[in-house]
Amino acid sequence: MAKVRVHNISLSLDGYAAGPDQDLEHPLGVGGERLHEWVFATDFGRAMIGQPTGDDPGPALDNELLGTADDGVGATIMGRNMFGPVRGEWPDESWTGWWGEEPPYHHPVFVLTHHARPSLEMAGGTTFHFVTDGFESALRQALAAADGLDVRIGGGPSTIQQYVRAGLVDEMTVAIVPVLLGAGERLFDGVGTDALTAVSLQASPAVVHVRLARPAGA
Amino acid sequence: MAKVRVHNISLSLDGYAAGPDQDLEHPLGVGGERLHEWVFATDFGRAMIGQPTGDDPGPALDNELLGTADDGVGATIMGRNMFGPVRGEWPDESWTGWWGEEPPYHHPVFVLTHHARPSLEMAGGTTFHFVTDGFESALRQALAAADGLDVRIGGGPSTIQQYVRAGLVDEMTVAIVPVLLGAGERLFDGVGTDALTAVSLQASPAVVHVRLARPAGA
Repeated sequence: MAKVRVHNISLSLDGYAAGPDQDLEHPLGVGGERLHEWVFATDFGRAMIGQPTGDDPGPALDNELLGTADDGVGATIMGRNMFGPVRGEWPDESWTGWWGEEPPYHHPVFVLTHHARPSLEMAGGTTFHFVTDGFESALRQALAAADGLDVRIGGGPSTIQQYVRAGLVDEMTVAIVPVLLGAGERLFDGVGTDALTAVSLQASPAVVHVRLARPAGA
Repeated sequence: MAKVRVHNISLSLDGYAAGPDQDLEHPLGVGGERLHEWVFATDFGRAMIGQPTGDDPGPALDNELLGTADDGVGATIMGRNMFGPVRGEWPDESWTGWWGEEPPYHHPVFVLTHHARPSLEMAGGTTFHFVTDGFESALRQALAAADGLDVRIGGGPSTIQQYVRAGLVDEMTVAIVPVLLGAGERLFDGVGTDALTAVSLQASPAVVHVRLARPAGA
């Protein structure tokens, strides 16, 4: 049975998954980059942004969890803000995502938006589809496209929250980053108490990895 | 130099240190007892409430951190709600705390309140002093009473927050409990980004212990 999964979502000690005042200059919100420093301290993260690897690979646990997050995933869903900073109607089709010519997905990606746009085929097997009829429709389309593999909800926080609230997430891993952001976008607001239960805790020197799952019967 | 310390404050994944709707029946708020189950799964916690120990001592790390939290502490400060459920003027002096005849402090305890009351001497070296002229006065009195030893801020969350916001806390340990409370009293609201920085992370099978300290120069 295909699962709906969320992986490696960084969460500050005060409960934020992004900083305040997101814009083009601060796509993760002001101070939000502190949530992701642990990623770029690993070889996985450095390879992702084209930096040299091998000198200091970073914590093995962090590398492993980052490197296996897409195992068995056949389609990704993301919110429009994760796709890019453009708001409102698409002025043209020049924005093709943050990731350059060959995005790291290599499978269909469904972008939640209120504004229709033709699908966009990129190098390396990634095609962005723009879904205007809601998050449940996006999940149906993603499950169909994944063809038996799992669907990953990529982010951002409000998109993840939407799927968790609806009880649609089977597995989730969160990386608790020991920083205070003071303000921003909360991950778990309004999620309730029983949507997910913790299965395991593992600390690297940098972050704590919490694995959560939908409780049996929920 | 005597320090101001906070220890083993339980924090849910969604950032709450107590559940909602605290009252006599729910002193930790509704669902708040889930934050403290890890304590009572240790020999330290079972001994605290008079239950048998030794059969299943619980995680060694949790026992150690619970058992050493009062090392070097000469006085404690707590908010009135941690002392008891009585609100407003003290109707009489019958309420003497949650802890019975011999509270586990064995040193002076300063209770923040708006309502004066004579000091209360208990068995075993604990004396409760009721401070009506503010949290900074309470800290001055506690430091004097501790006579060179450290002062521990016992709780609850709003009292801890008050001292953290004022930049008065030197060291703090937080236990992240992998549960969702959904609502309640937040620990770090309004604390800002630089009051404390993380020094270490350690996961037991039950909780994650985060050690924080005031940054050098702050």
